[in-house]
Amino acid sequence: MRKIYLDKVSLDEAKQKFFGKFHNLKTEAEEIEVEKAVGKVSSEAVYARRSAPNFYASAMDGIAVKSENTAGASERNPVQFKKDKEAVFVDTGDPVPSDFDAVIKIENVVENDDSTFEINKGVSPWHNIRSIGESVVKGEMIIPSNHKIRDFDLGALIEAGIKKVAVYKKPAVKIIPTGNELVNADSELKKGQLVEFNSKMIKSSIFKWGGRAKTTDIIPDDKKMIQNNIKESVKNNDITIVLAGSSAGKEDYTLNILENLGRVIIHGVNIMPGKPVILAEVNNKPVIGLPGYPLSALLNNYIFIRKLIYSLQGLKSPELPEVEAKVKRKVPSEIGLEEFLRVSLTEINNEIIAVPKKRGSAAMKSLVKADGIMRIAENKEGLSKNNKAPVILLEDKENIKNNLSLIGSHDLSLDLIQDEIQKSIKDFYLNIQSVGSMAGLMALKRGECQLAGAHLLDPETGNYNLTHLKRIFKDKKMALITLVERQQGFYIKKGNPKNINSISDLLRKDIAFINRQRGAGTRVLFDYLLNKSEIEPAKISGYDQEEFTHIAAAIAVGRGSADAALGIKAAAKAAEVDFIPVTEERYDLILFEENLQDPRIEYLISLLKKKEIQKKIEKLGGYKTEKTGEISIVGNK
Amino acid sequence: MRKIYLDKVSLDEAKQKFFGKFHNLKTEAEEIEVEKAVGKVSSEAVYARRSAPNFYASAMDGIAVKSENTAGASERNPVQFKKDKEAVFVDTGDPVPSDFDAVIKIENVVENDDSTFEINKGVSPWHNIRSIGESVVKGEMIIPSNHKIRDFDLGALIEAGIKKVAVYKKPAVKIIPTGNELVNADSELKKGQLVEFNSKMIKSSIFKWGGRAKTTDIIPDDKKMIQNNIKESVKNNDITIVLAGSSAGKEDYTLNILENLGRVIIHGVNIMPGKPVILAEVNNKPVIGLPGYPLSALLNNYIFIRKLIYSLQGLKSPELPEVEAKVKRKVPSEIGLEEFLRVSLTEINNEIIAVPKKRGSAAMKSLVKADGIMRIAENKEGLSKNNKAPVILLEDKENIKNNLSLIGSHDLSLDLIQDEIQKSIKDFYLNIQSVGSMAGLMALKRGECQLAGAHLLDPETGNYNLTHLKRIFKDKKMALITLVERQQGFYIKKGNPKNINSISDLLRKDIAFINRQRGAGTRVLFDYLLNKSEIEPAKISGYDQEEFTHIAAAIAVGRGSADAALGIKAAAKAAEVDFIPVTEERYDLILFEENLQDPRIEYLISLLKKKEIQKKIEKLGGYKTEKTGEISIVGNK
Repeated sequence: MRKIYLDKVSLDEAKQKFFGKFHNLKTEAEEIEVEKAVGKVSSEAVYARRSAPNFYASAMDGIAVKSENTAGASERNPVQFKKDKEAVFVDTGDPVPSDFDAVIKIENVVENDDSTFEINKGVSPWHNIRSIGESVVKGEMIIPSNHKIRDFDLGALIEAGIKKVAVYKKPAVKIIPTGNELVNADSELKKGQLVEFNSKMIKSSIFKWGGRAKTTDIIPDDKKMIQNNIKESVKNNDITIVLAGSSAGKEDYTLNILENLGRVIIHGVNIMPGKPVILAEVNNKPVIGLPGYPLSALLNNYIFIRKLIYSLQGLKSPELPEVEAKVKRKVPSEIGLEEFLRVSLTEINNEIIAVPKKRGSAAMKSLVKADGIMRIAENKEGLSKNNKAPVILLEDKENIKNNLSLIGSHDLSLDLIQDEIQKSIKDFYLNIQSVGSMAGLMALKRGECQLAGAHLLDPETGNYNLTHLKRIFKDKKMALITLVERQQGFYIKKGNPKNINSISDLLRKDIAFINRQRGAGTRVLFDYLLNKSEIEPAKISGYDQEEFTHIAAAIAVGRGSADAALGIKAAAKAAEVDFIPVTEERYDLILFEENLQDPRIEYLISLLKKKEIQKKIEKLGGYKTEKTGEISIVGNK
Repeated sequence: MRKIYLDKVSLDEAKQKFFGKFHNLKTEAEEIEVEKAVGKVSSEAVYARRSAPNFYASAMDGIAVKSENTAGASERNPVQFKKDKEAVFVDTGDPVPSDFDAVIKIENVVENDDSTFEINKGVSPWHNIRSIGESVVKGEMIIPSNHKIRDFDLGALIEAGIKKVAVYKKPAVKIIPTGNELVNADSELKKGQLVEFNSKMIKSSIFKWGGRAKTTDIIPDDKKMIQNNIKESVKNNDITIVLAGSSAGKEDYTLNILENLGRVIIHGVNIMPGKPVILAEVNNKPVIGLPGYPLSALLNNYIFIRKLIYSLQGLKSPELPEVEAKVKRKVPSEIGLEEFLRVSLTEINNEIIAVPKKRGSAAMKSLVKADGIMRIAENKEGLSKNNKAPVILLEDKENIKNNLSLIGSHDLSLDLIQDEIQKSIKDFYLNIQSVGSMAGLMALKRGECQLAGAHLLDPETGNYNLTHLKRIFKDKKMALITLVERQQGFYIKKGNPKNINSISDLLRKDIAFINRQRGAGTRVLFDYLLNKSEIEPAKISGYDQEEFTHIAAAIAVGRGSADAALGIKAAAKAAEVDFIPVTEERYDLILFEENLQDPRIEYLISLLKKKEIQKKIEKLGGYKTEKTGEISIVGNK
């Protein structure tokens, strides 16, 4: 029988058992030059070896005097000093000659002539004089144990005469990627093969946290080989990570190997993604089996390995920045699993709003585009509309307050606009979520974004968006900013091998169509075209198979998963398929009229009106930009 | 005439003028291998070169089936599949054979015997199947321009077939330390010489922010040499930093040189410390003259150079973490200067309380010991009691809520205890501020700390601390935790060259004493001893000269700045001076009785009671630890 999951445990229990075991584990200490110590952690307290300054020094640029000679000086009765006899110039840090006991700062000194100074305020003894050891005194503790050495600590250490410090070595990690289906990034991909990149992500995370990692070659699903690699790694490394091979798949030997070599502490944690993680010990060292799904591997790396890397160096792992965010829709989640959900974030009406991304799919890309990871607790069946939940912010996305969110239909020019905003180093980021025109308008209505992107045809009047806007937003005042006018048409394979020439060809038995999802403007258009030609949708093979973006549909045709799809010309160009033009349509950015004054929107409009940017959009293929940036208003005036 | 300050400007104006000039400046771009790109910033958008997956893949470990064959399956009417014919095992990521269109996860499959599977729930087409390009689609933008590449971005880039990316080069910085008084850290220090460490701090800061820096040799105060070094640097570097030479001292040529070579944008900013900074441009490149005082150099580096280093790489500089903190005392500050004040932070009664450190003095060490930098605005004459002001948190001190603050008299065993807490990786940090016994009790009363450290003799009763506690805290219930009993006595030079044997020797004309500050327990003791011997303080030469810690007083004697001082034995040992025992005294940690239950206090007491720690304390010299850790209560019962 195949081995299914072991007893899964809650995240809290897994953390307790795992970190409980390795809490006191540290790397060896080593002595290094103090100048190389910034960012490392002291393994013992460091005490000053000398005092500084080691002489009475001036704390100011000014003149050194005897304080008793300044008594009674005032605006009315200034006191004069003979240069070089009764007073001498000193700069900050200069030794104060032993017959003087105070320094008057240069701003308060009048140079009368070449031979006298004048002052009009008395000073007390030791005024502006740094005493011996004022900065540091020999024998004092400069930094304690387990202290991460900062730039200014370095200054204090050098000042105190320290040349070497004892620090914890960087934790050594060995990463062992396993799996017959994996190949290196530089290989040509055969069907069924996947590029191995988990090891590289994990390696760079470990580096960021202060560890060092080496990766073995990709090990095939061979029990003996995996076992030998683990045994070898445990001898020479602080942490061993086995990639993939932790779930219930038929080639997953890791669990069995770890049970034999040491002790499996945890197999299976109630989190999603990331459930099938293995936390084990071999020779009192941690060995972790990470699932192969990239998000699962990544999440477990952040949950379990990050803290270890820090504690091995004697550090507490810093808290990841978190915010509370509200959802404006129901978000179902499986009870009994703590879910980590990628979300976009934006601030609307002084609230941080989270919009969940689709689960599972588009793993890496959607993480790259996400602003944070929402945590839905194990004991919750999800969130209701207007519930709040904590969101871990992704690095460099801390400035979510300035995010401008656009939800709606996908258009290739949007990426270009997003990039232009980034190039300008403006203080905001354009967040784009591709969900289809109708879903975009609904998101705008729910208050999940500032902008919706739509190209919704009204078959009765032939207008774009207006009819739908009035229906959805009633007499609310809405603004439409024209993004582009663009060509829609059929994607077909290069050279048109199946000889598709009109919409009626889609009825042929040898033709498989691929459609767009419900609510997508392009699907509305397709239904309109079918209706006009009096074709029943049910007769189109593939009508129910859906892709979510133009480019995904075009790629599907290019790959031969389908013979035809409807979409914009620019995607045909990107996906290298042929294109049969069908019609021209308008794509608008839609927002509440009151938001036209938002400086981010104003900047966006100014970009759209720039000739050079319009030219770049046209270059994508099938676009007209005469009306790009034009604003129209609908609704209650 | 000597050149005094130019027109000083506000910090805001300085930032505007300086960053306004260099806002668009970037380093060159270079193509690097994608695996080395994490942490660097894309100079252009990156588009996917391939789709992934490039085949229909299983999203689960399970069995692949035809979805139509699962219709109607239920608990009562399970559906059976013949192994390898009607269903096949697939692992996550495996290609789904082309005659199947759904995957049922392994947990939902019953293996009846060697030849059949059973399921009890139907699935729809494409269930658990990842479509082609689901993760990434060729031609899509993966990351935009000016995006800092993160670990998971790396995964997405590799998956999308990216091998090289264009990133901004690390900004190249040249640091030119100048000054006749400066020597390298490995030199023997002569009188008037200072160790040059500013360049090393600044170099490590720049490294942390993503730049790379090289430092020239220390350049003497020679105009020609400094000028040549600046000219040479500007040719090959993005930023040039001249250290020292920016104030009004007589050897400060930097200003003059920069006026000749280019344009001085700002000389003098209304901040403290850090006023005499020079911000200039030479050949359209930034050249910054930093003041020599380490805190000034450091602060200006953080204010002006940090942001440049980021923007040169195409990045916004992240906000430094800040909190609002309350002061429990009046904090005067000069109007017209934005002051940056080192503070300790602790949380008391759900408020973050800031305690300012002494200005100017003990520069580096007090920064190392500080938790943050309080900003007092230019238009304020300081803060009144219970005012709040923003505090920039120092790296790794983010967990200020857990700080346990101790203010009071200095004792060497406290460093040791602080270090022991650090070693235990407990979740709190023991913050120690040495200000003298009486000042500690007043701080405790004001609510600035949880613990005061005191050894205040009551000359009338001979008791320690009790009389003062009753007077200051009235009938409030207070707890005293005995830290140590310790020897007090006179510090004298090794070998007692001046033949000091009793307190009356201090009356001798050839003997200079050095005293402790008012409110210090040791000063109280000295006054008591003088009184007992019927000696008038005014007759002691040096009675008014003050040091702030035992060890500073001992060092002063060791260096010959004074012939005698009163203090604890442990400091005599550390400072290598001789010691004439005079009396034994008790040093207590004092707190409000209600705080005895605080787990941090409980842990502290448990440490004090440990035999091994008591032994370490005794080793410091002059300590008895029989009563260490004992608790007594005074006040209203």
